[in-house]
Amino acid sequence: MAGFVLDYARYCVPTEGNFALTDIDPGDSQGLVRERDGAEVEARLAEVQVRLDELQHRLFAESKQALLLVLQAMDTAGKDNTIRRVMAPLNPMACRVTNFKSPSGAERARDFLWRVHSHIPRKGSIGVFNRSHYEDVLIARVHGLAPLELVEKRYDHINDFERMLTDHGTRVVKVMLHISKEYQLKRLKRRLKRSDKHWKFLPDDLRDRERWDDYMQAYDIMLQRCSTPYAPWYVVPAENRWLRNLIISQLLLDNLEDMNPQFPAPQFDPADYPPEAIT
Amino acid sequence: MAGFVLDYARYCVPTEGNFALTDIDPGDSQGLVRERDGAEVEARLAEVQVRLDELQHRLFAESKQALLLVLQAMDTAGKDNTIRRVMAPLNPMACRVTNFKSPSGAERARDFLWRVHSHIPRKGSIGVFNRSHYEDVLIARVHGLAPLELVEKRYDHINDFERMLTDHGTRVVKVMLHISKEYQLKRLKRRLKRSDKHWKFLPDDLRDRERWDDYMQAYDIMLQRCSTPYAPWYVVPAENRWLRNLIISQLLLDNLEDMNPQFPAPQFDPADYPPEAIT
Repeated sequence: MAGFVLDYARYCVPTEGNFALTDIDPGDSQGLVRERDGAEVEARLAEVQVRLDELQHRLFAESKQALLLVLQAMDTAGKDNTIRRVMAPLNPMACRVTNFKSPSGAERARDFLWRVHSHIPRKGSIGVFNRSHYEDVLIARVHGLAPLELVEKRYDHINDFERMLTDHGTRVVKVMLHISKEYQLKRLKRRLKRSDKHWKFLPDDLRDRERWDDYMQAYDIMLQRCSTPYAPWYVVPAENRWLRNLIISQLLLDNLEDMNPQFPAPQFDPADYPPEAIT
Repeated sequence: MAGFVLDYARYCVPTEGNFALTDIDPGDSQGLVRERDGAEVEARLAEVQVRLDELQHRLFAESKQALLLVLQAMDTAGKDNTIRRVMAPLNPMACRVTNFKSPSGAERARDFLWRVHSHIPRKGSIGVFNRSHYEDVLIARVHGLAPLELVEKRYDHINDFERMLTDHGTRVVKVMLHISKEYQLKRLKRRLKRSDKHWKFLPDDLRDRERWDDYMQAYDIMLQRCSTPYAPWYVVPAENRWLRNLIISQLLLDNLEDMNPQFPAPQFDPADYPPEAIT
Protein backbone atom coordinates (compact mmCIF):
# COMPACT_ATOMS: atom_id res chain seq x y z
CA MET A 1 0.00 0.00 0.00
CA ALA A 2 3.05 2.23 -0.48
CA GLY A 3 2.12 5.66 -1.77
CA PHE A 4 -1.50 5.30 -0.68
CA VAL A 5 -3.85 8.19 -1.35
CA LEU A 6 -5.66 9.29 1.77
CA ASP A 7 -9.28 10.09 1.06
CA TYR A 8 -11.17 12.08 3.63
CA ALA A 9 -13.75 13.48 1.23
CA ARG A 10 -15.71 10.30 1.84
CA TYR A 11 -16.23 11.44 5.43
CA CYS A 12 -17.64 14.83 4.50
CA VAL A 13 -21.34 15.14 5.28
CA PRO A 14 -23.11 16.25 2.09
CA THR A 15 -24.62 19.70 2.38
CA GLU A 16 -27.68 18.56 0.50
CA GLY A 17 -29.53 15.28 0.40
CA ASN A 18 -29.78 12.60 3.00
CA PHE A 19 -27.14 11.43 5.38
CA ALA A 20 -27.07 9.05 8.30
CA LEU A 21 -24.22 8.09 10.60
CA THR A 22 -24.82 4.51 9.61
CA ASP A 23 -23.44 5.47 6.17
CA ILE A 24 -19.96 5.58 7.66
CA ASP A 25 -18.19 2.62 9.23
CA PRO A 26 -16.46 3.76 12.44
CA GLY A 27 -13.80 1.13 11.77
CA ASP A 28 -13.12 2.19 8.17
CA SER A 29 -9.41 2.17 7.38
CA GLN A 30 -9.52 2.70 3.59
CA GLY A 31 -7.97 -0.71 3.08
CA LEU A 32 -4.98 0.13 5.23
CA VAL A 33 -3.83 -2.40 7.81
CA ARG A 34 -1.89 -1.27 10.84
CA GLU A 35 0.61 -4.13 10.85
CA ARG A 36 1.49 -3.54 7.20
CA ASP A 37 0.88 0.19 6.71
CA GLY A 38 1.22 1.65 10.17
CA ALA A 39 4.80 2.78 9.65
CA GLU A 40 3.94 4.55 6.42
CA VAL A 41 0.97 6.24 8.05
CA GLU A 42 3.30 7.47 10.80
CA ALA A 43 5.81 8.72 8.25
CA ARG A 44 3.08 10.52 6.34
CA LEU A 45 1.85 12.09 9.55
CA ALA A 46 5.35 13.38 10.30
CA GLU A 47 5.48 15.01 6.85
CA VAL A 48 2.08 16.59 7.31
CA GLN A 49 3.15 17.93 10.69
CA VAL A 50 6.24 19.63 9.29
CA ARG A 51 4.10 21.43 6.75
CA LEU A 52 1.43 22.27 9.36
CA ASP A 53 4.13 23.91 11.42
CA GLU A 54 5.26 26.03 8.45
CA LEU A 55 1.75 27.14 7.66
CA GLN A 56 0.89 27.91 11.25
CA HIS A 57 3.97 30.12 11.36
CA ARG A 58 2.75 32.01 8.32
CA LEU A 59 -0.78 32.24 9.69
CA PHE A 60 0.63 33.78 12.87
CA ALA A 61 2.86 36.20 10.97
CA GLU A 62 -0.01 37.24 8.70
CA SER A 63 -2.58 37.62 11.50
CA LYS A 64 -5.49 38.12 9.14
CA GLN A 65 -7.20 34.73 9.36
CA ALA A 66 -7.89 32.12 12.00
CA LEU A 67 -8.76 28.44 12.02
CA LEU A 68 -11.25 26.85 14.39
CA LEU A 69 -11.41 23.09 14.82
CA VAL A 70 -14.64 21.93 16.44
CA LEU A 71 -14.48 18.45 17.96
CA GLN A 72 -17.54 16.52 18.99
CA ALA A 73 -17.91 12.90 19.97
CA MET A 74 -19.48 10.46 22.32
CA ASP A 75 -17.54 9.78 25.50
CA THR A 76 -14.39 7.64 25.10
CA ALA A 77 -14.11 8.37 21.36
CA GLY A 78 -10.70 9.96 21.88
CA LYS A 79 -11.21 13.73 21.76
CA ASP A 80 -8.53 14.41 24.34
CA ASN A 81 -6.03 12.12 22.71
CA THR A 82 -6.76 13.61 19.30
CA ILE A 83 -6.02 17.08 20.61
CA ARG A 84 -2.84 15.89 22.18
CA ARG A 85 -1.53 14.11 19.10
CA VAL A 86 -2.81 16.36 16.33
CA MET A 87 -1.96 19.65 17.99
CA ALA A 88 1.37 18.47 19.41
CA PRO A 89 3.55 19.80 16.56
CA LEU A 90 1.97 23.24 16.63
CA ASN A 91 3.40 26.27 18.32
CA PRO A 92 1.54 26.62 21.63
CA MET A 93 1.89 30.39 21.37
CA ALA A 94 -0.68 30.46 18.58
CA CYS A 95 -2.84 27.44 19.38
CA ARG A 96 -5.49 27.52 22.05
CA VAL A 97 -7.73 24.70 23.22
CA THR A 98 -10.99 25.41 25.01
CA ASN A 99 -12.66 22.58 26.90
CA PHE A 100 -16.37 23.24 27.23
CA LYS A 101 -17.90 21.61 30.28
CA SER A 102 -21.37 22.02 31.73
CA PRO A 103 -22.19 25.72 31.44
CA SER A 104 -21.58 27.85 34.51
CA GLY A 105 -24.24 30.03 36.06
CA ALA A 106 -22.94 33.08 34.19
CA GLU A 107 -23.06 31.10 30.96
CA ARG A 108 -26.54 29.74 31.51
CA ALA A 109 -27.70 33.30 32.10
CA ARG A 110 -26.92 34.12 28.43
CA ASP A 111 -27.80 32.68 25.04
CA PHE A 112 -26.02 29.45 24.10
CA LEU A 113 -23.54 31.11 21.69
CA TRP A 114 -22.30 33.67 24.21
CA ARG A 115 -19.70 31.47 25.83
CA VAL A 116 -18.31 30.01 22.63
CA HIS A 117 -18.12 33.43 21.00
CA SER A 118 -15.81 34.65 23.72
CA HIS A 119 -13.37 31.83 22.92
CA ILE A 120 -13.17 32.25 19.15
CA PRO A 121 -9.48 32.17 18.13
CA ARG A 122 -7.88 35.50 17.44
CA LYS A 123 -6.56 36.21 13.96
CA GLY A 124 -3.27 34.47 13.37
CA SER A 125 -4.09 31.55 15.60
CA ILE A 126 -5.65 28.11 15.66
CA GLY A 127 -8.42 27.36 18.12
CA VAL A 128 -9.75 23.98 19.15
CA PHE A 129 -13.13 23.51 20.75
CA ASN A 130 -13.20 20.33 22.81
CA ARG A 131 -16.99 20.06 22.73
CA SER A 132 -18.76 23.21 21.61
CA HIS A 133 -22.03 24.97 20.86
CA TYR A 134 -23.14 21.68 19.32
CA GLU A 135 -23.71 20.30 22.80
CA ASP A 136 -26.70 22.62 22.84
CA VAL A 137 -28.37 20.56 20.13
CA LEU A 138 -27.07 17.20 21.37
CA ILE A 139 -27.22 16.71 25.13
CA ALA A 140 -29.78 19.52 25.25
CA ARG A 141 -32.00 17.62 22.82
CA VAL A 142 -31.52 14.18 24.33
CA HIS A 143 -31.97 15.22 27.93
CA GLY A 144 -34.43 18.04 27.32
CA LEU A 145 -32.21 20.75 28.79
CA ALA A 146 -33.94 23.31 26.58
CA PRO A 147 -37.45 23.32 25.07
CA LEU A 148 -37.50 21.35 21.85
CA GLU A 149 -38.89 24.31 19.93
CA LEU A 150 -35.85 26.34 20.98
CA VAL A 151 -33.44 23.53 20.13
CA GLU A 152 -35.08 23.39 16.69
CA LYS A 153 -34.18 27.05 16.14
CA ARG A 154 -30.58 26.59 17.18
CA TYR A 155 -29.50 24.80 14.01
CA ASP A 156 -30.15 28.01 12.08
CA HIS A 157 -28.56 30.09 14.82
CA ILE A 158 -25.44 27.96 14.51
CA ASN A 159 -25.35 28.19 10.72
CA ASP A 160 -25.77 31.96 10.86
CA PHE A 161 -23.06 32.27 13.49
CA GLU A 162 -20.59 30.12 11.57
CA ARG A 163 -21.31 32.06 8.38
CA MET A 164 -20.54 35.31 10.18
CA LEU A 165 -17.26 33.85 11.48
CA THR A 166 -16.33 32.61 8.02
CA ASP A 167 -17.08 36.00 6.47
CA HIS A 168 -14.64 37.51 8.94
CA GLY A 169 -11.72 35.25 8.13
CA THR A 170 -12.23 32.33 10.52
CA ARG A 171 -12.15 28.96 8.84
CA VAL A 172 -14.45 26.55 10.68
CA VAL A 173 -13.53 22.86 10.46
CA LYS A 174 -15.88 20.46 12.22
CA VAL A 175 -15.02 16.89 13.10
CA MET A 176 -17.14 14.25 14.76
CA LEU A 177 -15.12 11.31 16.03
CA HIS A 178 -17.23 8.32 15.10
CA ILE A 179 -17.27 5.16 17.19
CA SER A 180 -19.69 2.30 17.70
CA LYS A 181 -21.49 1.43 20.89
CA GLU A 182 -19.43 -1.76 21.12
CA TYR A 183 -16.19 0.17 20.88
CA GLN A 184 -17.30 2.44 23.70
CA LEU A 185 -17.96 -0.59 25.84
CA LYS A 186 -14.37 -1.74 25.38
CA ARG A 187 -13.04 1.68 26.32
CA LEU A 188 -15.25 2.00 29.39
CA LYS A 189 -14.12 -1.40 30.63
CA ARG A 190 -10.53 -0.33 30.10
CA ARG A 191 -11.10 2.74 32.27
CA LEU A 192 -12.57 0.62 35.01
CA LYS A 193 -9.70 -1.85 34.90
CA ARG A 194 -6.98 0.78 35.27
CA SER A 195 -6.95 2.64 38.57
CA ASP A 196 -5.01 5.53 36.98
CA LYS A 197 -7.99 5.99 34.63
CA HIS A 198 -10.63 5.90 37.36
CA TRP A 199 -10.70 9.68 37.67
CA LYS A 200 -11.98 9.84 34.09
CA PHE A 201 -14.92 7.56 34.78
CA LEU A 202 -18.17 9.16 35.86
CA PRO A 203 -21.26 7.10 36.57
CA ASP A 204 -23.12 9.69 34.47
CA ASP A 205 -21.28 8.36 31.44
CA LEU A 206 -23.43 5.27 31.72
CA ARG A 207 -26.54 7.40 31.72
CA ASP A 208 -25.51 8.80 28.32
CA ARG A 209 -24.65 5.32 27.13
CA GLU A 210 -28.18 4.15 27.89
CA ARG A 211 -29.40 6.88 25.57
CA TRP A 212 -27.00 5.89 22.76
CA ASP A 213 -29.68 5.60 20.09
CA ASP A 214 -31.17 8.96 21.00
CA TYR A 215 -27.73 10.51 20.76
CA MET A 216 -27.15 8.98 17.34
CA GLN A 217 -30.45 10.45 16.20
CA ALA A 218 -29.49 13.87 17.58
CA TYR A 219 -26.15 13.63 15.78
CA ASP A 220 -27.88 12.69 12.54
CA ILE A 221 -30.14 15.73 12.72
CA MET A 222 -27.26 18.03 13.60
CA LEU A 223 -25.01 16.69 10.85
CA GLN A 224 -27.73 17.04 8.24
CA ARG A 225 -28.75 20.51 9.23
CA CYS A 226 -25.37 22.04 10.05
CA SER A 227 -23.09 20.69 7.35
CA THR A 228 -22.81 23.77 5.15
CA PRO A 229 -20.69 24.64 2.13
CA TYR A 230 -18.72 27.11 4.22
CA ALA A 231 -18.40 24.89 7.29
CA PRO A 232 -18.95 21.22 6.44
CA TRP A 233 -19.01 18.43 8.98
CA TYR A 234 -16.61 15.51 8.74
CA VAL A 235 -17.48 12.21 10.36
CA VAL A 236 -14.09 10.63 10.99
CA PRO A 237 -13.89 6.93 11.84
CA ALA A 238 -12.18 6.93 15.21
CA GLU A 239 -11.74 3.30 16.12
CA ASN A 240 -8.40 3.14 14.30
CA ARG A 241 -6.60 5.74 16.36
CA TRP A 242 -3.36 5.30 14.40
CA LEU A 243 -5.13 6.43 11.20
CA ARG A 244 -7.47 9.00 12.77
CA ASN A 245 -4.63 11.40 13.58
CA LEU A 246 -3.44 11.43 9.98
CA ILE A 247 -6.93 12.04 8.62
CA ILE A 248 -7.54 15.03 10.87
CA SER A 249 -4.04 16.45 10.40
CA GLN A 250 -4.41 16.22 6.64
CA LEU A 251 -7.81 17.90 6.83
CA LEU A 252 -6.32 20.78 8.82
CA LEU A 253 -3.36 21.04 6.49
CA ASP A 254 -5.48 21.20 3.35
CA ASN A 255 -7.61 23.92 4.90
CA LEU A 256 -4.52 25.92 5.80
CA GLU A 257 -3.08 25.44 2.32
CA ASP A 258 -6.33 26.73 0.92
CA MET A 259 -6.26 29.74 3.26
CA ASN A 260 -2.73 30.34 1.95
CA PRO A 261 -1.45 32.74 4.63
CA GLN A 262 1.39 35.06 3.62
CA PHE A 263 4.16 36.79 5.49
CA PRO A 264 3.08 40.41 5.78
CA ALA A 265 5.01 43.20 4.14
CA PRO A 266 7.59 44.69 6.53
CA GLN A 267 6.47 47.71 8.50
CA PHE A 268 9.51 49.61 7.23
CA ASP A 269 11.46 50.17 4.06
CA PRO A 270 14.37 47.72 4.19
CA ALA A 271 16.45 50.29 2.28
CA ASP A 272 16.17 52.55 5.33
CA TYR A 273 17.61 49.90 7.63
CA PRO A 274 20.74 48.33 6.16
CA PRO A 275 21.88 45.72 8.71
CA GLU A 276 25.36 47.25 8.95
CA ALA A 277 23.90 50.61 9.99
CA ILE A 278 22.32 49.29 13.19
CA THR A 279 24.43 49.92 16.25
CA MET B 1 31.16 16.61 31.56
CA ALA B 2 29.04 13.43 31.62
CA GLY B 3 26.57 13.40 34.48
CA PHE B 4 26.80 17.16 34.95
CA VAL B 5 24.70 18.73 37.67
CA LEU B 6 22.57 21.56 36.37
CA ASP B 7 22.50 24.46 38.79
CA TYR B 8 19.80 27.04 38.33
CA ALA B 9 19.77 28.24 41.94
CA ARG B 10 22.58 30.57 40.93
CA TYR B 11 20.09 32.43 38.73
CA CYS B 12 17.56 33.00 41.48
CA VAL B 13 17.30 36.62 42.51
CA PRO B 14 17.80 36.80 46.29
CA THR B 15 14.70 37.95 48.12
CA GLU B 16 16.81 40.06 50.45
CA GLY B 17 19.99 42.02 49.93
CA ASN B 18 21.37 43.58 46.81
CA PHE B 19 21.18 42.29 43.29
CA ALA B 20 22.10 43.66 39.91
CA LEU B 21 21.73 42.13 36.47
CA THR B 22 25.44 42.60 36.03
CA ASP B 23 25.88 39.84 38.64
CA ILE B 24 24.82 37.30 36.03
CA ASP B 25 26.66 36.64 32.81
CA PRO B 26 24.14 36.29 29.95
CA GLY B 27 26.55 33.87 28.29
CA ASP B 28 27.04 31.66 31.37
CA SER B 29 27.03 27.97 30.43
CA GLN B 30 28.13 26.44 33.74
CA GLY B 31 31.29 25.17 32.11
CA LEU B 32 29.34 23.28 29.46
CA VAL B 33 30.44 23.55 25.84
CA ARG B 34 27.98 22.95 23.07
CA GLU B 35 30.31 20.96 20.83
CA ARG B 36 31.22 18.60 23.64
CA ASP B 37 28.12 18.59 25.86
CA GLY B 38 25.29 19.58 23.53
CA ALA B 39 24.16 16.00 22.94
CA GLU B 40 24.00 15.27 26.63
CA VAL B 41 22.06 18.47 27.27
CA GLU B 42 19.58 17.40 24.59
CA ALA B 43 19.29 13.94 26.12
CA ARG B 44 18.73 15.44 29.55
CA LEU B 45 16.07 17.74 28.13
CA ALA B 46 14.26 14.76 26.59
CA GLU B 47 14.22 13.03 30.00
CA VAL B 48 12.91 16.15 31.71
CA GLN B 49 10.18 16.47 29.10
CA VAL B 50 8.95 12.92 29.65
CA ARG B 51 8.60 13.63 33.35
CA LEU B 52 6.99 17.04 32.70
CA ASP B 53 4.40 15.30 30.59
CA GLU B 54 3.61 12.83 33.40
CA LEU B 55 3.27 15.56 35.98
CA GLN B 56 1.15 17.77 33.73
CA HIS B 57 -1.18 14.82 33.28
CA ARG B 58 -1.52 14.48 37.06
CA LEU B 59 -1.95 18.21 37.51
CA PHE B 60 -4.80 18.11 34.99
CA ALA B 61 -6.41 15.08 36.62
CA GLU B 62 -6.14 16.60 40.07
CA SER B 63 -7.39 20.06 39.04
CA LYS B 64 -6.58 21.67 42.37
CA GLN B 65 -3.45 23.63 41.50
CA ALA B 66 -2.11 25.61 38.55
CA LEU B 67 1.29 26.76 37.39
CA LEU B 68 1.96 30.16 35.85
CA LEU B 69 5.19 30.85 33.99
CA VAL B 70 5.87 34.56 33.55
CA LEU B 71 8.38 35.38 30.80
CA GLN B 72 9.98 38.77 30.43
CA ALA B 73 12.89 39.86 28.27
CA MET B 74 14.26 42.50 26.00
CA ASP B 75 13.37 42.14 22.35
CA THR B 76 15.16 39.31 20.47
CA ALA B 77 16.02 37.45 23.69
CA GLY B 78 14.04 34.43 22.52
CA LYS B 79 10.74 34.48 24.40
CA ASP B 80 8.79 33.06 21.47
CA ASN B 81 11.30 30.34 20.78
CA THR B 82 11.46 29.44 24.47
CA ILE B 83 7.70 28.98 24.55
CA ARG B 84 7.81 26.86 21.46
CA ARG B 85 10.59 24.58 22.67
CA VAL B 86 9.84 24.37 26.38
CA MET B 87 6.08 23.96 26.05
CA ALA B 88 6.25 21.65 23.03
CA PRO B 89 6.01 18.36 24.96
CA LEU B 90 3.03 19.48 27.01
CA ASN B 91 -0.56 18.61 26.30
CA PRO B 92 -2.07 21.66 24.57
CA MET B 93 -5.40 20.86 26.20
CA ALA B 94 -4.07 22.00 29.55
CA CYS B 95 -1.48 24.58 28.55
CA ARG B 96 -2.40 28.08 27.52
CA VAL B 97 -0.12 30.87 26.35
CA THR B 98 -1.19 34.50 26.56
CA ASN B 99 0.72 37.07 24.55
CA PHE B 100 0.37 40.49 26.10
CA LYS B 101 0.70 43.31 23.59
CA SER B 102 0.05 47.01 24.04
CA PRO B 103 -3.09 47.27 26.14
CA SER B 104 -6.37 47.80 24.30
CA GLY B 105 -8.75 50.66 25.07
CA ALA B 106 -10.82 48.40 27.31
CA GLU B 107 -7.68 47.34 29.15
CA ARG B 108 -6.35 50.85 29.59
CA ALA B 109 -9.71 51.80 31.07
CA ARG B 110 -8.99 49.49 34.04
CA ASP B 111 -6.18 49.00 36.54
CA PHE B 112 -3.04 47.30 35.22
CA LEU B 113 -3.77 43.91 36.82
CA TRP B 114 -7.24 43.57 35.33
CA ARG B 115 -6.19 42.12 32.02
CA VAL B 116 -3.67 39.67 33.44
CA HIS B 117 -6.09 38.50 36.09
CA SER B 118 -8.55 37.42 33.44
CA HIS B 119 -5.90 35.14 31.90
CA ILE B 120 -4.72 33.36 35.04
CA PRO B 121 -4.59 29.60 34.29
CA ARG B 122 -7.45 27.55 35.58
CA LYS B 123 -6.76 24.84 38.13
CA GLY B 124 -5.27 21.76 36.51
CA SER B 125 -3.48 23.73 33.83
CA ILE B 126 -0.24 25.51 32.99
CA GLY B 127 -0.33 29.11 31.86
CA VAL B 128 2.42 31.06 30.17
CA PHE B 129 2.51 34.84 30.09
CA ASN B 130 4.53 36.06 27.13
CA ARG B 131 5.15 39.48 28.66
CA SER B 132 2.94 40.31 31.62
CA HIS B 133 1.97 42.79 34.32
CA TYR B 134 5.70 43.45 34.65
CA GLU B 135 5.55 45.56 31.49
CA ASP B 136 3.73 48.04 33.67
CA VAL B 137 6.86 48.64 35.71
CA LEU B 138 9.27 48.30 32.76
CA ILE B 139 8.15 50.05 29.58
CA ALA B 140 5.81 52.15 31.72
CA ARG B 141 8.75 53.34 33.82
CA VAL B 142 11.20 53.88 30.96
CA HIS B 143 8.78 55.67 28.67
CA GLY B 144 6.74 57.37 31.37
CA LEU B 145 3.46 55.69 30.39
CA ALA B 146 2.23 56.11 33.95
CA PRO B 147 3.18 58.65 36.63
CA LEU B 148 6.33 57.54 38.44
CA GLU B 149 4.59 57.71 41.80
CA LEU B 150 2.02 55.20 40.54
CA VAL B 151 4.70 52.95 39.05
CA GLU B 152 6.39 53.00 42.44
CA LYS B 153 3.23 51.62 44.06
CA ARG B 154 2.87 48.83 41.52
CA TYR B 155 5.71 46.70 42.89
CA ASP B 156 3.68 46.19 46.06
CA HIS B 157 0.50 45.68 44.04
CA ILE B 158 2.26 42.93 42.10
CA ASN B 159 3.62 41.25 45.23
CA ASP B 160 0.21 41.34 46.86
CA PHE B 161 -1.43 39.94 43.73
CA GLU B 162 1.07 37.11 43.37
CA ARG B 163 0.72 36.25 47.05
CA MET B 164 -3.03 36.01 46.63
CA LEU B 165 -2.58 33.71 43.61
CA THR B 166 -0.10 31.55 45.49
CA ASP B 167 -2.44 31.26 48.46
CA HIS B 168 -5.08 29.93 46.08
CA GLY B 169 -2.96 27.17 44.59
CA THR B 170 -1.28 28.90 41.66
CA ARG B 171 2.47 28.46 41.59
CA VAL B 172 4.08 31.53 40.05
CA VAL B 173 7.43 30.97 38.30
CA LYS B 174 9.09 34.06 36.86
CA VAL B 175 11.87 34.00 34.31
CA MET B 176 13.75 36.86 32.74
CA LEU B 177 15.70 35.84 29.65
CA HIS B 178 18.98 37.66 30.04
CA ILE B 179 20.99 38.88 27.04
CA SER B 180 23.59 41.57 26.44
CA LYS B 181 23.21 44.61 24.25
CA GLU B 182 25.80 43.15 21.88
CA TYR B 183 23.84 39.92 21.52
CA GLN B 184 20.71 41.87 20.66
CA LEU B 185 22.64 43.66 17.93
CA LYS B 186 23.53 40.34 16.33
CA ARG B 187 19.91 39.20 16.45
CA LEU B 188 18.56 42.44 15.01
CA LYS B 189 21.00 42.27 12.12
CA ARG B 190 19.93 38.70 11.51
CA ARG B 191 16.31 39.81 11.27
CA LEU B 192 17.21 42.49 8.78
CA LYS B 193 19.22 40.09 6.63
CA ARG B 194 16.43 37.54 6.30
CA SER B 195 13.37 38.71 4.42
CA ASP B 196 11.23 36.00 6.10
CA LYS B 197 12.09 37.67 9.42
CA HIS B 198 11.27 41.20 8.29
CA TRP B 199 7.73 41.03 9.64
CA LYS B 200 9.21 40.66 13.13
CA PHE B 201 11.24 43.85 12.84
CA LEU B 202 9.66 47.10 13.98
CA PRO B 203 11.52 50.38 13.84
CA ASP B 204 10.22 50.95 17.40
CA ASP B 205 12.52 48.14 18.52
CA LEU B 206 15.40 50.51 17.90
CA ARG B 207 13.76 53.11 20.09
CA ASP B 208 13.82 50.63 22.97
CA ARG B 209 17.39 49.68 22.14
CA GLU B 210 18.46 53.30 22.51
CA ARG B 211 17.09 53.19 26.04
CA TRP B 212 18.91 49.94 26.89
CA ASP B 213 20.54 51.27 30.06
CA ASP B 214 17.27 52.67 31.32
CA TYR B 215 15.63 49.31 30.74
CA MET B 216 18.38 47.50 32.61
CA GLN B 217 17.84 49.86 35.51
CA ALA B 218 14.08 49.26 35.43
CA TYR B 219 14.75 45.49 35.41
CA ASP B 220 17.12 45.82 38.35
CA ILE B 221 14.51 47.64 40.40
CA MET B 222 11.79 45.18 39.45
CA LEU B 223 13.93 42.12 40.20
CA GLN B 224 14.97 43.47 43.57
CA ARG B 225 11.50 44.46 44.64
CA CYS B 226 9.46 41.59 43.21
CA SER B 227 11.58 38.53 43.89
CA THR B 228 9.70 37.07 46.82
CA PRO B 229 9.98 33.81 48.75
CA TYR B 230 6.67 32.65 47.27
CA ALA B 231 7.38 33.87 43.72
CA PRO B 232 11.09 34.35 43.13
CA TRP B 233 12.56 35.74 39.92
CA TYR B 234 15.07 33.76 37.89
CA VAL B 235 17.47 35.56 35.57
CA VAL B 236 18.31 32.89 33.00
CA PRO B 237 21.28 33.42 30.68
CA ALA B 238 19.71 33.28 27.25
CA GLU B 239 22.57 33.60 24.81
CA ASN B 240 23.15 29.85 24.83
CA ARG B 241 19.77 28.83 23.51
CA TRP B 242 20.68 25.11 23.55
CA LEU B 243 21.16 25.29 27.34
CA ARG B 244 18.42 27.81 28.12
CA ASN B 245 15.64 25.34 27.29
CA LEU B 246 16.98 22.76 29.71
CA ILE B 247 17.35 25.30 32.52
CA ILE B 248 13.77 26.48 32.21
CA SER B 249 12.35 22.99 31.72
CA GLN B 250 14.16 21.77 34.82
CA LEU B 251 12.89 24.76 36.78
CA LEU B 252 9.31 23.97 35.76
CA LEU B 253 9.76 20.30 36.51
CA ASP B 254 11.14 20.89 40.00
CA ASN B 255 8.23 23.19 40.75
CA LEU B 256 5.75 20.58 39.58
CA GLU B 257 7.52 17.88 41.59
CA ASP B 258 7.22 20.11 44.62
CA MET B 259 3.52 20.73 43.93
CA ASN B 260 3.20 16.93 43.79
CA PRO B 261 -0.23 16.66 42.10
CA GLN B 262 -2.17 13.46 42.70
CA PHE B 263 -4.79 11.57 40.74
CA PRO B 264 -8.09 12.31 42.47
CA ALA B 265 -10.12 9.62 44.15
CA PRO B 266 -12.70 8.15 41.76
CA GLN B 267 -16.16 9.69 41.91
CA PHE B 268 -17.63 6.24 42.43
CA ASP B 269 -17.00 3.09 44.42
CA PRO B 270 -15.12 0.76 42.08
CA ALA B 271 -16.84 -2.17 43.80
CA ASP B 272 -20.13 -0.87 42.40
CA TYR B 273 -18.84 -0.94 38.83
CA PRO B 274 -17.10 -4.23 38.09
CA PRO B 275 -15.89 -3.94 34.46
CA GLU B 276 -17.70 -7.12 33.49
CA ALA B 277 -21.05 -5.72 34.64
CA ILE B 278 -21.03 -2.82 32.14
CA THR B 279 -23.09 -3.52 29.05
